[in-house]
Amino acid sequence: MQDHLLSELGQQLRVDSVRAAAAAGSGHPTSSMSAADLMAVLLANHLHYDFEQPRHPGNDHLVFSKGHASPLLYSLFKAAGAISDEELLTFRKLGSRVEGHPTPRLPWVDVATGSLGQGLPIGVGLALARKRLDKVDSRVWVLCGDSELAEGSVWEAVEHGWYEHLDNLTAIIDVNRLGQRGPTRHAWDLGAYARRLHAFGWHTIEIDGHDVTAIDRAYGDAASTVGRPTAIIARTVKGRGVAAVENREGLHGKPLPDPEEAVAELGGVREMAVPVLGPAAAGIARPSHGGPLTLPRFDPGEEVATRDAFGQALAALGTARGDVVVLDGEVGDSTRTELFAKEHPERFFECYIAEQQLVAAAIGIQARGWTPYASTFAAFFTRAYDFVRMASISRADLNLVGSHAGVAIGEDGPSQMGLEDLAAFRAVHGSTVLYPCDANQTARLTAEMAEESGIRYLRTTRGKTPVIYPPSESFPIGGSKLVRATDDDHVTIVAAGVTLHEAIAAADRLAQEGIHARVIDLYTVKPADTQTLRAAADLTGALVTVEDHHPEGGLGDAVLEAFCDGYPMPPTARLAVRDMPTSATPAQQLAAAGIDAEAIAAAARQLVGAAN
Amino acid sequence: MQDHLLSELGQQLRVDSVRAAAAAGSGHPTSSMSAADLMAVLLANHLHYDFEQPRHPGNDHLVFSKGHASPLLYSLFKAAGAISDEELLTFRKLGSRVEGHPTPRLPWVDVATGSLGQGLPIGVGLALARKRLDKVDSRVWVLCGDSELAEGSVWEAVEHGWYEHLDNLTAIIDVNRLGQRGPTRHAWDLGAYARRLHAFGWHTIEIDGHDVTAIDRAYGDAASTVGRPTAIIARTVKGRGVAAVENREGLHGKPLPDPEEAVAELGGVREMAVPVLGPAAAGIARPSHGGPLTLPRFDPGEEVATRDAFGQALAALGTARGDVVVLDGEVGDSTRTELFAKEHPERFFECYIAEQQLVAAAIGIQARGWTPYASTFAAFFTRAYDFVRMASISRADLNLVGSHAGVAIGEDGPSQMGLEDLAAFRAVHGSTVLYPCDANQTARLTAEMAEESGIRYLRTTRGKTPVIYPPSESFPIGGSKLVRATDDDHVTIVAAGVTLHEAIAAADRLAQEGIHARVIDLYTVKPADTQTLRAAADLTGALVTVEDHHPEGGLGDAVLEAFCDGYPMPPTARLAVRDMPTSATPAQQLAAAGIDAEAIAAAARQLVGAAN
Repeated sequence: MQDHLLSELGQQLRVDSVRAAAAAGSGHPTSSMSAADLMAVLLANHLHYDFEQPRHPGNDHLVFSKGHASPLLYSLFKAAGAISDEELLTFRKLGSRVEGHPTPRLPWVDVATGSLGQGLPIGVGLALARKRLDKVDSRVWVLCGDSELAEGSVWEAVEHGWYEHLDNLTAIIDVNRLGQRGPTRHAWDLGAYARRLHAFGWHTIEIDGHDVTAIDRAYGDAASTVGRPTAIIARTVKGRGVAAVENREGLHGKPLPDPEEAVAELGGVREMAVPVLGPAAAGIARPSHGGPLTLPRFDPGEEVATRDAFGQALAALGTARGDVVVLDGEVGDSTRTELFAKEHPERFFECYIAEQQLVAAAIGIQARGWTPYASTFAAFFTRAYDFVRMASISRADLNLVGSHAGVAIGEDGPSQMGLEDLAAFRAVHGSTVLYPCDANQTARLTAEMAEESGIRYLRTTRGKTPVIYPPSESFPIGGSKLVRATDDDHVTIVAAGVTLHEAIAAADRLAQEGIHARVIDLYTVKPADTQTLRAAADLTGALVTVEDHHPEGGLGDAVLEAFCDGYPMPPTARLAVRDMPTSATPAQQLAAAGIDAEAIAAAARQLVGAAN
Repeated sequence: MQDHLLSELGQQLRVDSVRAAAAAGSGHPTSSMSAADLMAVLLANHLHYDFEQPRHPGNDHLVFSKGHASPLLYSLFKAAGAISDEELLTFRKLGSRVEGHPTPRLPWVDVATGSLGQGLPIGVGLALARKRLDKVDSRVWVLCGDSELAEGSVWEAVEHGWYEHLDNLTAIIDVNRLGQRGPTRHAWDLGAYARRLHAFGWHTIEIDGHDVTAIDRAYGDAASTVGRPTAIIARTVKGRGVAAVENREGLHGKPLPDPEEAVAELGGVREMAVPVLGPAAAGIARPSHGGPLTLPRFDPGEEVATRDAFGQALAALGTARGDVVVLDGEVGDSTRTELFAKEHPERFFECYIAEQQLVAAAIGIQARGWTPYASTFAAFFTRAYDFVRMASISRADLNLVGSHAGVAIGEDGPSQMGLEDLAAFRAVHGSTVLYPCDANQTARLTAEMAEESGIRYLRTTRGKTPVIYPPSESFPIGGSKLVRATDDDHVTIVAAGVTLHEAIAAADRLAQEGIHARVIDLYTVKPADTQTLRAAADLTGALVTVEDHHPEGGLGDAVLEAFCDGYPMPPTARLAVRDMPTSATPAQQLAAAGIDAEAIAAAARQLVGAAN
């Protein structure tokens, strides 16, 4: 498209952004107006995309990291013929797909954005998937705000993009000088951004973001740059084109004061339809599925860490399923993803100690149809909690595996213990939370979790635990296991993972005293097996829950929820980690936290005594 | 101290690190040995610290961001005469203060480390406090690992340290080439680090980290650099000094294979006692406390957003208390901390869109005895969850205030909604979780939260809500309010924040139908008011809990926990946000989530009907 038409298209995008926000009565038109020329040139001359086939394997990817510029994105979609003007004007209304911030309810949106600093890390994931997995020559374009470059996650992405030579990735930085509440640290100092990005190994181009010729040349330059990603650092004006709002503070996230006048000032409504460049003919050799899955088998009585079983199962799964991809945060020797990495190096991604990028890369990779498993210590997923939260809004299908959970890790102390992970992952919309206790169970769940939708979290244990299930046992997600049960049990102990073995030991001690304890292995913490919990409560009239986790939000609460709708809840003792742990051996830790066999037996005794 | 003695001291620190890890049977001696010379020179010639007076206002600060090098830290403490050799050898044992990773159980440790990438951001907080609050000329030295420079949080700190001209801050980067599972991205390419840091405006010095002369000079250079922080980038060898482990992979986090031989190779046990330089005579004009607190007063019936009340109360608190400091993540116009910033600009810290640095700065500031309030959207505290988790291990006293909670924000959509915050904060050890519903309550709680210990979280609401309490009402933390109650109530509705008003409206509707609903304002979600909940349950025999949050881990679970020890729990309907929200008006959102007055009334009707 020629320059004067590009400028016209930019104005159209501004007009439509203003109109959408005016119709909604809210939104971010000024943040859209600054980037309108950048996006006009991209759409008309550089983006390769078939809007009728959003799943076309040759399509480029466009990620609005500055998700609040959604009016601009939707105006682009309108210009591309993907949505109607009518739909554009349903912006932010109940039921509309054109939400306040973009989500994949629109088929041309790969991932939800709106929490700043996420688009570029996810873009790195998409670019990795395109280059190393899909092996298709398509580009990933990420529109970033200037404010969001303060987010550390952006610099994790910048480092990773350089390290992986992602020359299919272009960051377009809309330097409009103004954040939400005032000027950014660097205002219009393009060089400040360029120096930083260049030092991280990126190709950088500084331009006037309203000069369509310069923009066009920059995109061409980015596309022809080999071996490293490109950042186009564009000086723009917030609210560009409307004097009443141009380059003014205090107007972030607000519709224009006089939209009609603004539209007139911008030259009125236009109806340019952009013939977008088609994607390259691309066939992705989709990885083969359905090979035989030969999970590792462990003999009952053997002592195996569940993290080992996870690593072995993951390697086996990788052999059976060509779509399985694994990522780790530089602790693969601990999480045991190294077992996968050795067998399937082409599908293993080392993300170093950058947990936000770890999860973001997995989100980008799943958006391309692959099945990622991302792993680090359970404790360190707290670093990426915002990415997990946003992944659920992205409707992402993601396997996350946290190792070294709980006080049972022993001497390393609380900084390395995941004691909030069950609560955090349970609270994520649509999540599945798994906590296996033995090697065979872990192996099965490792494979099965990939069949669930949404965020699936599996928690593994550092130390060895005895194998208690035969390799043939199946573990449906949502189920539980009765590990000890008689017809006249006096008390039920609900446990999972490392505490399940303590529960068994407690039951054995109690049996010697004539107290029959039922033991439930609640390996699916979410969704919990309400039916089994209720039946056990009915029969035994007393419950002990025991978890290697803080008392709030974890297994204990999951059990309580099973009784909330009036089903009689028996007296329940909730054992959990109530004090701040220090350093000690694993056994001492369990004892100090009051979640070992002795503490469980004592709680059970007290409940049974009280009941008699 | 002269060079040959410095080298001897370095060897002593290595020997003691090896011995400590050997005694423990675990730990990270090789990561300690790489930095031994760096720390020897610091302790002997540059650190100003009175180990007998860890609270001396003139003391420097030493933060081991690479917390796993704790054997080195404790060996330093021994060399300084702070701990005995006997205590050193209790490393990682039950009851010992010398834990696997450092915590403030040792009085010379300001903050817990061990989650990588936290020490430098917290060091920025300390340096800010020293420079802008204490106004004392003391230095903050942060020992960083090379691996952890992959963490985005480090780059948030680097940017902030530059921006604030923190020339009292020195990062000492121990570039030992090897991470946990192998080489880092940059191995021994010191220039890669230097280029990045220099581009971010830091003074950088590249040295051989085993050359004590060069180290000594670098510290002097750092101390005399004005206007910007310094990074000393030191090439070191992991396991330095012991051939069996020197510069080898696969030896991270393991005691040496033959400690006795290693000690011999290092020249044997030494008992050098280092006369550490004393702190500058410094008197901090500690801010005055106890001025009269004149909280804003709101008239019942008025409509005021709780975030507005928070901002006004915070400004008033800042007038009454000179120790109150406020930080925001570039959304002060939304969270309303801007009201404090306008009145007390000298105690306001703009942290831009970098939530990890936001919380880390607050942690550093509280370690200096100030009382920080850090605020951003409730949703975006998920970015800093690992910092909050570690803050609890740091025994930090921290006020965190999250605005724009829940679906009630309306059109902006789920990316901006905090729907996991109550669960996440409840799961933090020793936390207090507050969720006020009106302006007077918010004002009171804003002031009272600072009196609690540990992590205190307050959740505010974007939209206006009616004032229902008089300004004179008090709201003890741990309490609740009976907002509607008769002697023959049929059902109890437990709510907080925005849903409290829906609960009142529901009670009014139900009253017209002859159903008496008791309404409890559970403004303290943790610790919950068990007694009031139980009394209401006894009396009414039916509960409805309603929260603008996902169903797991929040207010509903807090209520269930009140009934776990056998106290009869009545039939309970748990209303919460169970689907993924989209864009809509606040009222539509509450209706769509099934947490508005109509949904509450329907749930109450059903429970009462079922009970009859």
